[in-house]
Amino acid sequence: MALIVQKYGGSSVADAESIKRVAKRIVDTRRGGHDVVVAVSAMGDTTDELLDLAAQVAPIPAPRELDMLLSSGERISMALLAMAIHSMGFDARSFTGPQAGMRTDSRHGSARIVEVTPTRLREALDEGAIVIVAGFQGINDDTQDITTLGRGGSDTTAVALAAALDADVCEIYSDVDGIFTADPRVVPLAHKLAHVTSEEMLELAANGAKVLYIRAVEYARRHGVLIHARSSFTANEGTYVLGEGMKHPRESEGEAMEEPIVAGVATDLSQAKVTVAGVPDVPGKAAEIFKIVAKSGANVDMIVQNVSAASTGRTDISFTLPKSDASAALKALAAEQSEVGFESLLHDDQIGKLSVVGAGMRSHSGVSAILFEALSTAGVNLEMISTSEIRISVVVRGDELAEAARVVHAAYGLDGEVETVVAAGTGR
Amino acid sequence: MALIVQKYGGSSVADAESIKRVAKRIVDTRRGGHDVVVAVSAMGDTTDELLDLAAQVAPIPAPRELDMLLSSGERISMALLAMAIHSMGFDARSFTGPQAGMRTDSRHGSARIVEVTPTRLREALDEGAIVIVAGFQGINDDTQDITTLGRGGSDTTAVALAAALDADVCEIYSDVDGIFTADPRVVPLAHKLAHVTSEEMLELAANGAKVLYIRAVEYARRHGVLIHARSSFTANEGTYVLGEGMKHPRESEGEAMEEPIVAGVATDLSQAKVTVAGVPDVPGKAAEIFKIVAKSGANVDMIVQNVSAASTGRTDISFTLPKSDASAALKALAAEQSEVGFESLLHDDQIGKLSVVGAGMRSHSGVSAILFEALSTAGVNLEMISTSEIRISVVVRGDELAEAARVVHAAYGLDGEVETVVAAGTGR
Repeated sequence: MALIVQKYGGSSVADAESIKRVAKRIVDTRRGGHDVVVAVSAMGDTTDELLDLAAQVAPIPAPRELDMLLSSGERISMALLAMAIHSMGFDARSFTGPQAGMRTDSRHGSARIVEVTPTRLREALDEGAIVIVAGFQGINDDTQDITTLGRGGSDTTAVALAAALDADVCEIYSDVDGIFTADPRVVPLAHKLAHVTSEEMLELAANGAKVLYIRAVEYARRHGVLIHARSSFTANEGTYVLGEGMKHPRESEGEAMEEPIVAGVATDLSQAKVTVAGVPDVPGKAAEIFKIVAKSGANVDMIVQNVSAASTGRTDISFTLPKSDASAALKALAAEQSEVGFESLLHDDQIGKLSVVGAGMRSHSGVSAILFEALSTAGVNLEMISTSEIRISVVVRGDELAEAARVVHAAYGLDGEVETVVAAGTGR
Repeated sequence: MALIVQKYGGSSVADAESIKRVAKRIVDTRRGGHDVVVAVSAMGDTTDELLDLAAQVAPIPAPRELDMLLSSGERISMALLAMAIHSMGFDARSFTGPQAGMRTDSRHGSARIVEVTPTRLREALDEGAIVIVAGFQGINDDTQDITTLGRGGSDTTAVALAAALDADVCEIYSDVDGIFTADPRVVPLAHKLAHVTSEEMLELAANGAKVLYIRAVEYARRHGVLIHARSSFTANEGTYVLGEGMKHPRESEGEAMEEPIVAGVATDLSQAKVTVAGVPDVPGKAAEIFKIVAKSGANVDMIVQNVSAASTGRTDISFTLPKSDASAALKALAAEQSEVGFESLLHDDQIGKLSVVGAGMRSHSGVSAILFEALSTAGVNLEMISTSEIRISVVVRGDELAEAARVVHAAYGLDGEVETVVAAGTGR
């Protein structure tokens, strides 16, 4: 008998019918002889509707009250889910974040989990009940106020519960089948991965893959939680996210699992490129520029500095950042133009970022050569390049990103059978 | 500086506009130099919508989970109200039933308040904040589960807060102007009362008046809370409900207040009459009958037993009960007909009950004579009569009830100017 934590996102519990379907899946797991703890998101668009209401009564809602408001969404879905399970003849009890012992710091809207003390959950499990916990919420340890965990909060709730209860697996359900070698809407020949390492998953998520939230994967990695990302609409096995020293369950049972050098290709159209042109090539200028950008609240991703032209003693510095951060960064830089002494600012929001991720890169040479060769053959021009230990990212024209992803995917031998895949996107 | 508790029902916070209007009223009270604690119901039809959802996922929802579900409604309204007040530049903090220290017994769906420990509310008040509390909900002292207080729960929350915080007044806002001498839809010449005693209010509420819930009035009476029932749509003064030894505030300031013998005329079309005919006139038969009726779950109101006919040794027993309880009671009685030995059962759901209530009845004679005289002159036939110390109730034909109420209202000198009054009905 195992202890299984399951997380269901908003699209999995969007209406009464979906809730009954999820209840059946939970009951089936229980019937399999397992203890079950469920973290659930708010139904469908509830959170957006509540945010709308808040905007109608207050231009800038007080953060404490906004968390109080938003936390009601999960109370509705979890109570309904518990009722549905009850009416199938199984004991089920719902618990709010505070009742579940989800203790956080005081950052309303993006609280961090400080400690999980699941005393009441253990009691309920000991009494044979299925435990349903409100995702996304906790309680400020100091003030006893309700907090919310921010984007992807329910994933984090599930992983934190799995860690605190020492669960055998944390199943993250969404409307996609698992982690794919690429976004199937971009690369039709993408196939589902049996497993990825958590470091690969972090790189994929940080570079455009949307199935799992970085924070939840980090938490799982730090606390040794095995994640199984799968669909709530099928019975298919999904993708296991393996931390340090973990093996895919089938491999543990003796089955040999393929270990590709490259796990997947991530694509990202959400970034823009800013070039600060004609920067005096003297020490400290880059630091000066990125201090200004950071102060504007922008999150810089890739940075490239050209070799300076000896004739002018000036260089160009380009960086990428989320499109939504670009105008603030440009404004901040423009205000300091004479201070920094650069010549001009260029802004380009028609770029695409392609990243190849694989833990095998550490031990295999020639991985980047395959990438550059494939893109060159396809006539795709590279505008920026950056690498980490297990990732190579390149910036290309936005309208060439899909083509680039397809040829790179093929070049690494990732093309599989065509699968039918539903659109990506998970609840919070 | 006074401490004022205010309660706003669902119709007063039905949408964003209403919430802003209520926020302004609260802020105005605060600007008047008073400490303000607010109990708020769920927005408009939220509770009914949540009940609908519950019915869709479970035929008989688990009571613990139903309370968890329903309690989310007030979290939404209270957080929005606190935000709206915040954005007007005043500190406001919302508290759930558990956070407010509303400790109850374990009866999910109709929990009773055991104790109120408003530690956090006092702290917030001491820090100058306006306090918003979720009506209708509490926490089971033993299990730490969420409970709800049942119908009229938010009124009870407000009164219990007023008692625990020793408030100067508990203002119960609804969409009617206060307590009237009769239902203005039935008696157009009904007028608003400046005050009623709490015992009069209890009799009026028990006999058809719908502005205040009996439980809240009882709690106020027991704990010496001054209730002011008024409209959230006007600035008019409403009706004060005076407990033992209390005076209307204006009377306290030296103004002479009229003390009528009769406070008001209540009408009720929600009851049915059952007659058990041909009951053997031997001791213990009435007890036998009402034991059967009680076991069916019916709530008996008036009871009349005729003098037995000496010739037959049999008598008739009639009683009234809510229409919704009638079929269960009739079925239960029919099943025991041979055991009890009565001859037949009659059922009449076309009756109306008229009650005249006034604390002055204690010290004035001839009060009932006025009633009987007025009804006789109007040609209204009386089918049952029952009295308490401060009330006379009669059962008449349902289609004669309105006419009966008008002539009785006039006979006691209650007719006032014609007022414009909105429809009765409050939130829970």
